[in-house]
Amino acid sequence: MNEQMVRSIVEQVVHKLQEQTEQNSVPIAVSARHVHLSQEHVTILFGPQYELTHRADLSQPGQFAAEETVTIAGKKGSIERVRVLGPVRNATQVEISLTDALKIGIKPPLRQSGDIKGSASCVLIGPRGSIVLEEGVIVAQRHIHMSVEDGQRFNVADGEKVTVVISSERPVAFHDVLIRISDRYTCEMHIDTDEANAAAVSGVVTGTLLKGTTTS
Amino acid sequence: MNEQMVRSIVEQVVHKLQEQTEQNSVPIAVSARHVHLSQEHVTILFGPQYELTHRADLSQPGQFAAEETVTIAGKKGSIERVRVLGPVRNATQVEISLTDALKIGIKPPLRQSGDIKGSASCVLIGPRGSIVLEEGVIVAQRHIHMSVEDGQRFNVADGEKVTVVISSERPVAFHDVLIRISDRYTCEMHIDTDEANAAAVSGVVTGTLLKGTTTS
Repeated sequence: MNEQMVRSIVEQVVHKLQEQTEQNSVPIAVSARHVHLSQEHVTILFGPQYELTHRADLSQPGQFAAEETVTIAGKKGSIERVRVLGPVRNATQVEISLTDALKIGIKPPLRQSGDIKGSASCVLIGPRGSIVLEEGVIVAQRHIHMSVEDGQRFNVADGEKVTVVISSERPVAFHDVLIRISDRYTCEMHIDTDEANAAAVSGVVTGTLLKGTTTS
Repeated sequence: MNEQMVRSIVEQVVHKLQEQTEQNSVPIAVSARHVHLSQEHVTILFGPQYELTHRADLSQPGQFAAEETVTIAGKKGSIERVRVLGPVRNATQVEISLTDALKIGIKPPLRQSGDIKGSASCVLIGPRGSIVLEEGVIVAQRHIHMSVEDGQRFNVADGEKVTVVISSERPVAFHDVLIRISDRYTCEMHIDTDEANAAAVSGVVTGTLLKGTTTS
């Protein structure tokens, strides 16, 4: 290859990357620690016939932050005022950061939401009662919710892993970002507070979706 | 370009990347929150004529973790038992994570160690006294210490920014990693606990140094 050809290839690659940056912009939301509860556990923690109180809509349709909070306790400590998200689910699930986990002495696995079999245990404490949750504590695997149409636009399939670059003051490329496609979803990447702080981002930010990941 | 040529170029790139991965391995250490103190501040916090007590050597020659700890306080809270590192320095410097900063209500800038002019304020509390530290609180910019020889081996210069890829369960590429070269340094990348948790690494890990960064 002569220099002329190398230059031409580099220019094409740079141009392609610029195109991708413009087209493949993904909004990113930071998920603070939170708890999804089953109706049975709502009853134990908050009392008989209790129903979660709507506080604010979340970006995913039908999901909301509730007024209610609980305390999460592990072997080494506890975290108070952890937000409950609604609506109620079939199984209780606690999503915390690794920083939280180390602080309270829990070893949750890195999992996709809903995949809680054999995950970590904790104690949940509410105003009317408490639960020893045998399993359900996870660190959420970063992921991007998107509609079928978004999937076509980004040329990605449900379950595919991609890379997302955040060009902040502390720029990071997150690899192995899971694509989750459903017509119920609004396009948004979810990262936890450790990931947000590692990239020094907060509030509303965007990332650039790149096909492929270094590890697959 | 025909397919044959594209295939050949891709093979060359993949081969080059594999070579880089093997040769450009960098040990990574996680820096927990810590405090460097001036002798004047040691005296205020621990008493007259007080000298820091050696607890354990750190990887960088001459640096050590002291037995002493202090409390760091901000507007919203405090963190107890923050390790003091020795030896004493000309100016007191507090290095915390963004998670810590948000928790105690401080807004430290992202800075290289030693660059504390106009950085954030906090209160430091010791067993014999306390200080209102006007400036000195920073979030440490990720960086790689290396010797002049390491710099030649990696083909990087002091002050250059590179990318380091961590191939963990939560794979991440950190861009804008600052190279710091001195004959006093042992080759080691330093990241803070947010960055470590975002990559789900702890203890002794290695990354792969790649020339260049997406943002420069």
